[in-house]
Amino acid sequence: MVAINQQIFLAKRPEGLPAEDTFGFRHIPIDKPEQDQVLVKTLYLSVDPYMRGRMSTEKSYIEPFVLNEAIAGSMIGEVVESRSEHLQAGDKVQGFLPWQLYNTVDASAVTKINRLDVPLSAYLSVLGITGLTAYFGMLDIGAPKQGETVVVSSAAGAVGSIAGQIAKIKGARVVGIAGTEEKAAYLEKELGFDIGINYNQVDDLQKALEEACPDGVDVYFDNVGGSISDAVISLLNDFARIPLCGTISSYNNKDTDVGPRIQPKLLKTRSLLKGFIITDYAERFDEGLGELAGWLSEGKLKYNETVTTGFENTPNAFLDLFKGKNVGKLLVKVSDPAN
Amino acid sequence: MVAINQQIFLAKRPEGLPAEDTFGFRHIPIDKPEQDQVLVKTLYLSVDPYMRGRMSTEKSYIEPFVLNEAIAGSMIGEVVESRSEHLQAGDKVQGFLPWQLYNTVDASAVTKINRLDVPLSAYLSVLGITGLTAYFGMLDIGAPKQGETVVVSSAAGAVGSIAGQIAKIKGARVVGIAGTEEKAAYLEKELGFDIGINYNQVDDLQKALEEACPDGVDVYFDNVGGSISDAVISLLNDFARIPLCGTISSYNNKDTDVGPRIQPKLLKTRSLLKGFIITDYAERFDEGLGELAGWLSEGKLKYNETVTTGFENTPNAFLDLFKGKNVGKLLVKVSDPAN
Repeated sequence: MVAINQQIFLAKRPEGLPAEDTFGFRHIPIDKPEQDQVLVKTLYLSVDPYMRGRMSTEKSYIEPFVLNEAIAGSMIGEVVESRSEHLQAGDKVQGFLPWQLYNTVDASAVTKINRLDVPLSAYLSVLGITGLTAYFGMLDIGAPKQGETVVVSSAAGAVGSIAGQIAKIKGARVVGIAGTEEKAAYLEKELGFDIGINYNQVDDLQKALEEACPDGVDVYFDNVGGSISDAVISLLNDFARIPLCGTISSYNNKDTDVGPRIQPKLLKTRSLLKGFIITDYAERFDEGLGELAGWLSEGKLKYNETVTTGFENTPNAFLDLFKGKNVGKLLVKVSDPAN
Repeated sequence: MVAINQQIFLAKRPEGLPAEDTFGFRHIPIDKPEQDQVLVKTLYLSVDPYMRGRMSTEKSYIEPFVLNEAIAGSMIGEVVESRSEHLQAGDKVQGFLPWQLYNTVDASAVTKINRLDVPLSAYLSVLGITGLTAYFGMLDIGAPKQGETVVVSSAAGAVGSIAGQIAKIKGARVVGIAGTEEKAAYLEKELGFDIGINYNQVDDLQKALEEACPDGVDVYFDNVGGSISDAVISLLNDFARIPLCGTISSYNNKDTDVGPRIQPKLLKTRSLLKGFIITDYAERFDEGLGELAGWLSEGKLKYNETVTTGFENTPNAFLDLFKGKNVGKLLVKVSDPAN
């Protein structure tokens, strides 16, 4: 039994971009599991853009993190000790737990991973919240039809890269917007997007999009908001759909984000815009995971991970989210499983 | 047979607010109806905010008016001569026809009004496009539930006044925003809204709305866009719905309308915003008209008209739309029926 447990807590609410001093580390005890509890060792932690919102006190769909208390998020772990009949030592589980090396929790707080023919980390990306977010946003709200044009922003990111591939599976023409040449090439060459646009390279994004979308835009899977979205929205076709998944361009803004009002265009085109978060679809997770696992095993869906190693590097991995560095899902590998 | 026909045509595309020189009058002949045609005398003309859009060349859901050609819109007329077996002289009809004293058209271009126990003009307001717009926008997109809070902008206007009453019929708490004390009082005292706010009177609309909507906003029926909508959107509850019906605040703008971006709030609240125009619901018009007529006969629905008299005053009636003068539907009474 390892005697050392560590926790990452919210040391300071960031104004604007989070920094290293946003986070604090402390040693804490490892509690012995009581009846129906398990002791879980952390293998992988997920760092996600939405967590920036929880660092503020502003009202949102999820409660703010408490100052001086642990940050929590999606994770993969291994049961090291069990007092539950439902789990045993060695079982791999996923859950939403504090950023700690070890957590002692009710067995019902984690879900056993039964299918081990895919890498464990996939349960934090394509077969986790990330894949489900892409799946329901694209299919339930976007609902692309054969031959329609779909634009995805932050397209090389965790959700965007899956969302675009799902639209391809449905027969759409897919244009991805990303922030480096490498990512734009990755979209076209690895993921099969029809066009990848590097918004940092083009002189005029609006014009580049017009050229990439000669028939206009039917679905815009929006991860970013801001001026990129302004450019896409200007090209919407009648009855376009916008699954609104993220507004990362504004997460670190101190002031109100101002831009051209979108209502006139949405009215003229009779478009639909719908904000969503994945827990709204909790009752349909099995359906989504079944489809995603099927496409994965058929080779129709590729995914990519950027893995940082070491619990101590978790804050930096989180900060990387806002630097546009990562391709695919950003993860932290904390420990190797015992078996 | 009257020998004089007149037509109002688009003389000049307005930049910004339309003015008298936007319109021209000319004399034109009255064509004899051919087989299956009817000669229709105009009784009422409808002037509507959306027509401003057609005066520009900008792409929208409806083709721009052609310069030097007749302006067209919803109207009520009387058949004065018929060569169709489906209509006879004296029949009252509604249609979408050029602004003329007389029109000679295929009988299929107009619809006979069978139910004459309500005033003819109601077919341009509560039992016409206006009422249907309120009905489908509020019920199909807004879908207010018992006890929810509904806010309507331009609430004393043609569509807003009906939309708010429909929400009341469905058991919602309804707050209307209008531009004069008289209108705000009209909403509360005549139409049964819970609160009428005069946005020109309050120091801080945001604060006034917060007080009027202590439980937040579940449905926002938006006729105006602009800063009024900014204030309402800031108060949206989770899973709020915004039927986007009009953006009259921007119709006469020469420059792009700029304001706080709404995506962050729509994402946090997982709200839906949907632009619509009434022709999208053409297949369900009978359902809507049946319900509206029922509520009207039960006394559950009141409507108000501001009627300008005289064909020559049609341009001024249209310009009044943008002056915030009218309560209820703005109409032009052109002629009395012969019988």
